[in-house]
Amino acid sequence: MPSVTVAPAGDYLSLSLGASRLRFHAIWLRDNAPDPETRAEANGQRLIALRDIPAETIIAEASLGGGGLWLRFMPENKTVTYDLNWLQNHAYDRDITADPGWLSGGVETWDAALMVSVPTGDFAALEAGGTALDDWLGAMTRYGFGKIVNGPVEDGALFRVVDLFGHVRETNYGRHFEVRTEVNPTNLAFTGLGLQAHTDNPYRDPVPTIQVLYCLESSAAGGENMVVDGFAAALRLKAENEAYFNVLAEHCARFEYAGEANVCLTSRRPMIELAPDGELIGVRFNNRSLAAVQDVPFEKMALYYAAYRRLGEIIDDTAMEVTFRLNPGEAFVVDNTRVLHARKGYSGEGTRWLQGCYADKDGLRSAYDARRRQALVEAAE
Amino acid sequence: MPSVTVAPAGDYLSLSLGASRLRFHAIWLRDNAPDPETRAEANGQRLIALRDIPAETIIAEASLGGGGLWLRFMPENKTVTYDLNWLQNHAYDRDITADPGWLSGGVETWDAALMVSVPTGDFAALEAGGTALDDWLGAMTRYGFGKIVNGPVEDGALFRVVDLFGHVRETNYGRHFEVRTEVNPTNLAFTGLGLQAHTDNPYRDPVPTIQVLYCLESSAAGGENMVVDGFAAALRLKAENEAYFNVLAEHCARFEYAGEANVCLTSRRPMIELAPDGELIGVRFNNRSLAAVQDVPFEKMALYYAAYRRLGEIIDDTAMEVTFRLNPGEAFVVDNTRVLHARKGYSGEGTRWLQGCYADKDGLRSAYDARRRQALVEAAE
Repeated sequence: MPSVTVAPAGDYLSLSLGASRLRFHAIWLRDNAPDPETRAEANGQRLIALRDIPAETIIAEASLGGGGLWLRFMPENKTVTYDLNWLQNHAYDRDITADPGWLSGGVETWDAALMVSVPTGDFAALEAGGTALDDWLGAMTRYGFGKIVNGPVEDGALFRVVDLFGHVRETNYGRHFEVRTEVNPTNLAFTGLGLQAHTDNPYRDPVPTIQVLYCLESSAAGGENMVVDGFAAALRLKAENEAYFNVLAEHCARFEYAGEANVCLTSRRPMIELAPDGELIGVRFNNRSLAAVQDVPFEKMALYYAAYRRLGEIIDDTAMEVTFRLNPGEAFVVDNTRVLHARKGYSGEGTRWLQGCYADKDGLRSAYDARRRQALVEAAE
Repeated sequence: MPSVTVAPAGDYLSLSLGASRLRFHAIWLRDNAPDPETRAEANGQRLIALRDIPAETIIAEASLGGGGLWLRFMPENKTVTYDLNWLQNHAYDRDITADPGWLSGGVETWDAALMVSVPTGDFAALEAGGTALDDWLGAMTRYGFGKIVNGPVEDGALFRVVDLFGHVRETNYGRHFEVRTEVNPTNLAFTGLGLQAHTDNPYRDPVPTIQVLYCLESSAAGGENMVVDGFAAALRLKAENEAYFNVLAEHCARFEYAGEANVCLTSRRPMIELAPDGELIGVRFNNRSLAAVQDVPFEKMALYYAAYRRLGEIIDDTAMEVTFRLNPGEAFVVDNTRVLHARKGYSGEGTRWLQGCYADKDGLRSAYDARRRQALVEAAE
């Protein structure tokens, strides 16, 4: 049986729900009130600012009933009812300390063992929507990586991949770029060289958070693609040597690309990026565009380089990599803040032609979450 | 007279240049070697990875001459010459501790006093390039804000503003969005309501880092625009109460927008964002889309709300704001990771029509830096 107690000063309340006792502050409750004067019913946006809520707001009265918590706030003399499930789902009276490098719920790290079950969607099924799309978007949010097969072998088909979840992020490379051997390459990606696993464009800030690579021709020998989970690599580094993990997280690297006229892209960001509370939120790793690191003190630079070297060795470890060959009409998509991709060297004989473009993962997560929300609504009807 | 000494173990050297003594590690020097086997001459990208450089690399020999530092590395037995100016500019043997909230060189905070000298560019002069564009791009990087005047009163003219420095970031709102009163608005921006100063789309991750607002019609009463330097506001908060600054920087807020079908955008990022070494790199402030904050422990939530309230009061202080009225053919551009913008309420009589779009500031900085680099090359010729 739920019960509620208001603190003597009225500045917070305690809600007992089953075994849990959850405290909520008056100001937090008032700011998150779900009534139509506080939140626009149509679009869910808050209609008032904190300046519209008195700083001395207290809970004057509280009662429970019908799955709801009814409150009267003073000095506004405003009454609001909260859904108990909503309160339980949004509670903050909990132990929220976690080790640096913790992962958001729903994120799952992987290694070469994923090779036998690469998340793969059929192009037509994905375009039709339904569970095929749900599953593929879900795999993208969980693993940061997914393949698409049986697509058209057609210039620009990669844009139809982006249409599944978002919008193209145009850059100085254009709305899309062609990946094939060039005679005077502006970028080493446009040669037949093998490339170490890397994230793209770390010299951009913000980096493009999604990359799509779509195969149109593939008769050259070699050129296999591989992907590595940067989160798995960073956490393995931490397990092996916490000082290595910390030095890469606590200092900014610098990246630069100025390989064409009118372009001079620079960034100053860490190789391992944590949220203020230690959530692992990004990995940047790219030997080609790492600039001179200047933000590590002399006393720590040897440690920094040892850590950078070890992270590279982990990334190069075949136990970490998922390798595959893209055939024409096949694509792969990566979360570029997390998953590194690489290409083996290929010969000049035959052809290899991929088209690539960037997009953003907030759009992908939004598409997935909106579809799940809609499914819940439909299930409830 | 410069001099160089190699440490007995060969793992670093000391370079005396005038009054400064700069130490550089062997591995750092080898990784940053400028020779054509290490760096591609055409595009500046590194051709090797750290795995190609022996971990036991030492400096076997060093000498100075002709403005350069000549080194021989073992075990590769590789000789490389470094430019002394380059070494001085990229030195890391320095005191790099700074108070949290430090600002990158070239960033200048501002308040209402900027009103008399708003950075403004003439549309045609900017499109012609030259110093007008240099000055305006420079002001954008320094202040995070600039106006443009005397532009065409023409649907889509805002894209010509983006063409000055980068590329449109398309979102669920389209390549651009119309800001005028709507009957059933999906977003409160499309009403006549006054809006508190805010950054746009904090529920997106990454947020769009540049916003352009371009005026096409303006005969309604009210609707003035104003901008506030979020960096100045955050630093004023810190000066007033360091605990307030810290609690907003050390905990993630949550933001959400789900005001239209198929959209459910959520983010978990702090209101005041610092780099790992304390550089102030971003501000997110938006009462409409702040979701329930869940990542602050119960013991700190009252402090968090007091800090959030005080930051809002500082942002609302007219001493912080630059106000102006956009006439047709005028636009303003803000760094959306730093500068908040607001609109005063306006009446339904007359019309007010703006077009808005997003872009990214790495492109803007790149355009500016590339132009400066080119100017240096031309000056040297």
